[in-house]
Parts: sequence; C-alpha cells; structure tokens
Amino acid sequence: MVALDPAALHDSLRDPVLGSIGFLNEVMGRYPDAISFAPGAPHPDFHDELDVHRYVERFLDHLVRVEGHDPERARRLLYEYGPARGLINGIVAEALRRDQGIDVPPAAIVITVGAQEAMLLALRALFGSSRDLLAVASPCFVGIVGAARLLDVGVVPVRETEHGIDLEALTEACRTARRDGHRVRACHLAPDFANPGGGRMSLDHRRDLLRLAQQEELLLIEDNTYGFTAAPTDELPSLKALDIDGRVLHIGTFAKTCFPAARVGYIVADQPITAENPSHSDPAPKRSGRTGLDAGPTGLDARPGGLDARPGGLDAGHGGERLLATELAALKSMITVNTAPLSQAAVAGFLLEHGGSLAEPSHRRAAIYRRNLACLLAALDRHLGEPPPAGVTWNRPEGGFFVRVRLPVPVDLDLLEVSAAKYGVLWTPMAPFYLDGGGDHQLRLSCSYLDPEQIETGVRRLADFIREEIGV
Amino acid sequence: MVALDPAALHDSLRDPVLGSIGFLNEVMGRYPDAISFAPGAPHPDFHDELDVHRYVERFLDHLVRVEGHDPERARRLLYEYGPARGLINGIVAEALRRDQGIDVPPAAIVITVGAQEAMLLALRALFGSSRDLLAVASPCFVGIVGAARLLDVGVVPVRETEHGIDLEALTEACRTARRDGHRVRACHLAPDFANPGGGRMSLDHRRDLLRLAQQEELLLIEDNTYGFTAAPTDELPSLKALDIDGRVLHIGTFAKTCFPAARVGYIVADQPITAENPSHSDPAPKRSGRTGLDAGPTGLDARPGGLDARPGGLDAGHGGERLLATELAALKSMITVNTAPLSQAAVAGFLLEHGGSLAEPSHRRAAIYRRNLACLLAALDRHLGEPPPAGVTWNRPEGGFFVRVRLPVPVDLDLLEVSAAKYGVLWTPMAPFYLDGGGDHQLRLSCSYLDPEQIETGVRRLADFIREEIGV
Repeated sequence: MVALDPAALHDSLRDPVLGSIGFLNEVMGRYPDAISFAPGAPHPDFHDELDVHRYVERFLDHLVRVEGHDPERARRLLYEYGPARGLINGIVAEALRRDQGIDVPPAAIVITVGAQEAMLLALRALFGSSRDLLAVASPCFVGIVGAARLLDVGVVPVRETEHGIDLEALTEACRTARRDGHRVRACHLAPDFANPGGGRMSLDHRRDLLRLAQQEELLLIEDNTYGFTAAPTDELPSLKALDIDGRVLHIGTFAKTCFPAARVGYIVADQPITAENPSHSDPAPKRSGRTGLDAGPTGLDARPGGLDARPGGLDAGHGGERLLATELAALKSMITVNTAPLSQAAVAGFLLEHGGSLAEPSHRRAAIYRRNLACLLAALDRHLGEPPPAGVTWNRPEGGFFVRVRLPVPVDLDLLEVSAAKYGVLWTPMAPFYLDGGGDHQLRLSCSYLDPEQIETGVRRLADFIREEIGV
Repeated sequence: MVALDPAALHDSLRDPVLGSIGFLNEVMGRYPDAISFAPGAPHPDFHDELDVHRYVERFLDHLVRVEGHDPERARRLLYEYGPARGLINGIVAEALRRDQGIDVPPAAIVITVGAQEAMLLALRALFGSSRDLLAVASPCFVGIVGAARLLDVGVVPVRETEHGIDLEALTEACRTARRDGHRVRACHLAPDFANPGGGRMSLDHRRDLLRLAQQEELLLIEDNTYGFTAAPTDELPSLKALDIDGRVLHIGTFAKTCFPAARVGYIVADQPITAENPSHSDPAPKRSGRTGLDAGPTGLDARPGGLDARPGGLDAGHGGERLLATELAALKSMITVNTAPLSQAAVAGFLLEHGGSLAEPSHRRAAIYRRNLACLLAALDRHLGEPPPAGVTWNRPEGGFFVRVRLPVPVDLDLLEVSAAKYGVLWTPMAPFYLDGGGDHQLRLSCSYLDPEQIETGVRRLADFIREEIGV
C-alpha cells in the first residue's frame, strides 16, 4: 500500500488550527466523565422541544397556501436538487428585516451550510490576488482562520479588547499592508461577544468602524452568531443594519437559535457588481462560445420546476443590478451545490411557527445563556476570588458563551491532561486563537452546554486544580 | 453604495464554467414549457415513494437496538453538531463491501455534502504545491473543474473515448508535465458512463490504468456516480475494488440512488499518511504549544456525547495508522463543519430498510434510466436516422444519463435560443465541457428527468430544429 507523505499535502493540514482538533477530541474521549467547559455547542435542552417533521410540514403549507405552489411540486422540492442560492431566502430576508432592521432583497442572501460555508464563500469571492490580506480580530475565531488557510489567503491579526476590535490597530494594519505592497481587502469580526474574546462594540464604536472601512476602502465580514445573547434591554444594531454604503457582508447561523444539526446559515451580500468588463455582468455571457452547463455532480443547477426558475427573477437586487450574492451562489455550486432542502425547510418552518421571526425563541435561549454566564462568573468569584490567587484573572463578558481565564503559568496540553486526569475538568487552551503568539497563559471556559450544578462543580474542580497544581 | 469591480474578485468567477450557469437558468426560466434535455437530475417519480420521516426513525432504532445507544442521546444526534467525518460511516462501509466489494474500515470514509464537497476535499488535501497538476478526463465533468478553479489547482485535460480515458494520452500528459517541471499529482475520471462523455472502461482497461497510476506515481480520483446504471449482467468492479496499493480515492453520492436533496455523498480515502515529520501523525501534536480548539462556527467538533468520542476510535485504519480520510475530515471542519445529521439519518435509514445495501433500489432506478436511454437512442434513429443528415452523428452509450449529438455547425447559445424559442426544446452546449477548445459542434441530451413520451416529442422537435435551422 502506497503511503502519502504529509509534507506533500496542502499547507493548511499542517496548521495548528486543523491539526489540534483531533487532540481535543481524543482527550474528551478519554475522559468522558469529566466536566467539560470546552464545547461551545448550544444547550441540549432546547432540542427536546423541536419537531422537525412539523416544521417541514409548516413550510410546505406556506409554499402552497401563501406562495401558491402546487402541493405535489412543493413536496418534491424536499427531494430534488435546489437552487444554489437557497429555497428560503424570502423568509430569511423577512426575519432579518423584522428582527434586526436589515432590509435587503431575497436576492442579496445566500443560504449556506452553516456560517462556516458562508465564510468560505466570502473569502473565495473577495480574495482574487495574493497581495490581498484578511484582517481578523485577535483572539481569532478559528473558523475564519481555517477558511483562509484552506484558500491560501494571508491573515493579519488585529487586537481586540473588551470593547471590540481596536480601530487604531486596524488602521495601522491597513497602512502597514499598503506600505508593504499589500492591501487589507476585508476584516472579519463579531461586534457582539466574539468567540473567544467576548468583547462587545458600542454603537459609537460601530459607527467609527464603518467610517474607517470607508476611509481605508476595506470590506467588513460581520459574524452575528452571538448577537442574540444580549439582554433585551441592551440590544445594539448590527454593523449591517448601520451600513449605508455596502461595506458589510453579514453572516448568520441558525445553529444557536434553531438547532446546529440543520447546518443552515446565511450570508447577506448586497454589494452590486459593476462590470468594468461588460461581458461579466451580461446575463447571457458568451465568452468564447462556452456556456450552458452543469453545476454539480448531478446534473444541473437549472432544474425543472425549481423556485428560482422565474424569468428576470432572483438574480437582481432592488435596483435590478447583479449582486455579490449571485457570485457567491455560483461559487457555492462548486462547493456543496445547494444546502439540503430538508434542512432549509425545517428552519423556515421554525421561523414561520414563530411568526416569521426569531425574536421569541432567541430571547428564551438567551435567558438561559445569560443565566449560565452569571453562574460561571459567580462560581469563579466564589471559588477563586476574594482574593484571587496571584496572577489569576478572568474577563467578565456581558453575553456570549465564553469566559477567558489567565493563569500565571503557560497553559498547554500537558496542563490540560493534568486537569482532566486528576481533577475531572476540561477546558480549551487559548494559544491557538492567537496568530501572533499571545494567549499562552490563558484558557477558555464555555458555559453554553452545561447546567448550573455542573458549572458549580466544574469551577470548584478548576479552582482546586489551579491552587494545587499551579501553586498560587 | 460602493460597487465591487469584478476584476478584483477571484479568477474562478470569470471562468466560463461558473459564469454560464446563470444563463442556462435564465433560458430555462424563459421557456418553462419547453421540453428540456438539459437537467441531469434523477427522475422525479422515485421521490414519490420516499418517506424521510420513516427512514430517520429506522436509523434511530438501529442506533438504539443494534449499536446500544441511549434512546434520548440517539435522538439528540439529529439536533446537535456531529463529527466532521460523519455519523453513518459504518453503515456506508458495510454497503460498499456488500454492493461493490470495496472493503475499507469506517475510518477510511468521510461523509460529505454530496460528491461535490468530496471533490473539493480531495483536491485541497492532495494539492500542496503549485507545480502539481490535476488531469481530468475530457470532455470534463464540470464539478471537478469548478473545484479545481476554486482552489487554483492547474488542470490538464486528457482525451476520453467511448472506452474511457485514453491511457496513452494520460501517460503523455504525465511525461510532458515532468518535462516542464510539473507533476500530475492525480487524475479525475468516471470509469462508468462519465458525465458528459458516456464512455465506459473495460476490466482490462481498468487494470491497465491502475498499473499506469503506479508507474507514473499518480493518484486516481474515481467518480462512481453512474456505475449503478449498468445492466445487472454487465457490472464491472470499480477502480477502488481493484485497487491493491492505495492509488484510488473513491467518490460516491446517494443523490441518484436515494435522493438528491439529502446532499449526502462520501469519499473513501484509506491511504495511510506516513509521517516523515513525526509530529504530524502524533495523536497529540504540540507544535509551538498551540492546540486544542474549535472546529467551526460553534463550538467545538469535540462535542459531548458524540459517536466519535471513543478512545482510540475512528481515526485509525485496519492497521492503526492515520489515514488520509482523517485529514479530509479536518479540512471538512473548515468547509461545512459536518454533514447535516438529519440528511445522514435519512440515507442511513434508507440503506437499513433495504437490508444495508443499495442493490435493490439501484437496480430498480437503473432499469428506468436504461429504458429512457433506449427510448432516446431509438427516437434519434427514428427521427434523425436512415440516413442521418450530413454531419449529424451521436454516440450510443450503454448506461448513464447522457447522449452527445454532433452537428455540422457550431453549437452555441444563439442556436440554443432558436431551439428554445421556435421549437420548444432545450439541451446543453458541449463546448464548456472541453478545456482545450473541442466540443463546439456538439450538444448534450440528458434523458434522466423525462418520460418516454416527452423524450419522443422532444426528439421530434429537435429533429425539426436540426433539419430546418441547420439546413442539412
């Protein structure tokens, strides 16, 4: 049997971001009874109330009774290939308008296999030259770094504080890049309770960032995953809701507000594409006589009977222009062809059951996460505070799933192994979230998947571990 | 509103493969009543017998009664994140062993979002250097070309005849590449009834190809999408079933044999990774102290309660080595995180309902496709043969979904427009399937989505179109 030399595989496979996932899986497998502050997964209780079968029927009913589809044809949509851009764009557009004040046409949205595919699409479309760089808020969300590595997109980390990305550092990164013959093409960040940083941007900070993006001519890739965990009295508009000149690509997921296994996310990309080369935006491109063909392993994107087979239909924005979302859908046809219609139907039915809005289920879920976060912070105070051991500190985010704890010693895998084996508590080392060498004295605690009693016990174990092993 | 310059977007968006999908959608939208030989989608009748709800329950029952899972935990698998490699690898491995004589451990398989994601994973893992080239059977399957463009992988077309890929041309391509300082790292092909070529390789030809791959040190990426359409008396082993030294990556899809909207495919990648750099295959990599973190927008791949959270579990092959599939799963965590568990459950339940095998449903479907293909060829003979107009010929594949017709004039979009508008019949121009300028006098007819009466009417219209418009 021929063996493959790892050195001949793509560089991304040698990246710590990819290489270390296996180890964490392996540790968790070896200590199944440990209390784990590692997974950032949604709380399992929410899944008990779900009824996918009912949601799917609800969506089909909507297609027939509201959108006027033939019942048999509507049901077939669940079994056939669908349009790359998605089947439920109108329902998602309406929810974005109601819940977040993001007012875009369905054509500006692509339904994706989770937020992860949305990031990959955005990077692939926007990064056309090796001189272009992606700025990422640091500590970084590993999904965006992984997507960039996969596409050989250069990444520049930009410091993030509890108040969000540092605008001076971002400006400086843009200028340094220009001086070196590069360009910061886009910046990825989460304005609300970033994973893992936990910071949040004020309204003024958001407006300043949009101005900076305009001045420095960069695009913002906004990740809205944790925005819903804000207290109802403390909601802030997303960057996209404030975006008047199209600087923002907005990525969301239904993983936390509906359920993760649907694998349904979306990207809002309403930027018009201005054809300097007219053949590009021509609806009937004829470059060297080549055209008209399959998208995917299948088959053909242009299925008979699809929802997007409407003349002059979904490709165009409010003003009839071709939008970036159309380009993203074309790329998607070469990645996953289309997002599973059954999953889309489940999410759409869930939205319809809640009046076409995520507000009510999101608020219900957010209350649990805020309770858990409060429990976690209180347990840290109780077991590690008054006074905390020398060199032990933690941040106090007001939302999201994560708290970071700083220790006076390097936090590495050997330490994790001790914590798991002797104290029965798991967490995530923070070093992999930093591209420039920071974070090696930090660990991340996630409270999303646990109950208050587990949080209490887990923090007690963590405190014992810190006092006994680290000797503070 | 700021507009984006298409010239600054990634090159793949200027590729005819991507650019032309929109046009075909648009034409089909404008002529909804035309008979369309364009879509290669599975016949809709098969979907009427499907019952996803029942299949999902069947899979859950299997998890509980056969695999010994707790019922509540089993149901939660449908709602939570799952392992990147998949949830149903064991069931798929068993079906591959029974149906195709492909004997690999579950750890050698990654469940993907259709065959398209499998191609993207294979290319991303294998192509680590810009000197590496991908050979593709020509006429080419557009999905593989699209994936290569997305990843900036260089592509070399290699002539395919009715007997499959031309081995002399492939050998020559390898030698030319070497002479130019390149290397043909892998070759993508479908040994059975390729889309769109329709060719089929004999058993001897398959063995010769495997020998060639060994001699020239290249990997084969085998697409098995249409193998099931062979007559039951005429089935040939796949390349993977004949592969003794690990030269073959085998890609399959449940789109045609189960249903397309599941978006479930798989890749078999049982090649061991030999660590020349020992830290790479170390189960606990510690490069610069960075490790242990999220995979995906979520969260963490290492969820509590997952099916892969077994010590020493799914990462290893028969002999305990790390396999290429493990690397592909790591990459997948940065593309789609995991394949929707509901979709996987539906496919697994479908398999279990058919005794853990696709043989019976595949044979039933194949019979319909062979009937349609026979109808299409008979109608072409009847309406265009005896004698055919000068310069009009077509191939006679013995399986698959597609027939190619050669005309004595260039086949372009203007001609398609005339065919649609005046004659009410649609087809696909072949030129985009050729990377080196061939095919501009050919069109492709697909018979998979139509019924015999539509095929008869469609071919009559096509014959009128050819005789009247082309003047032969």
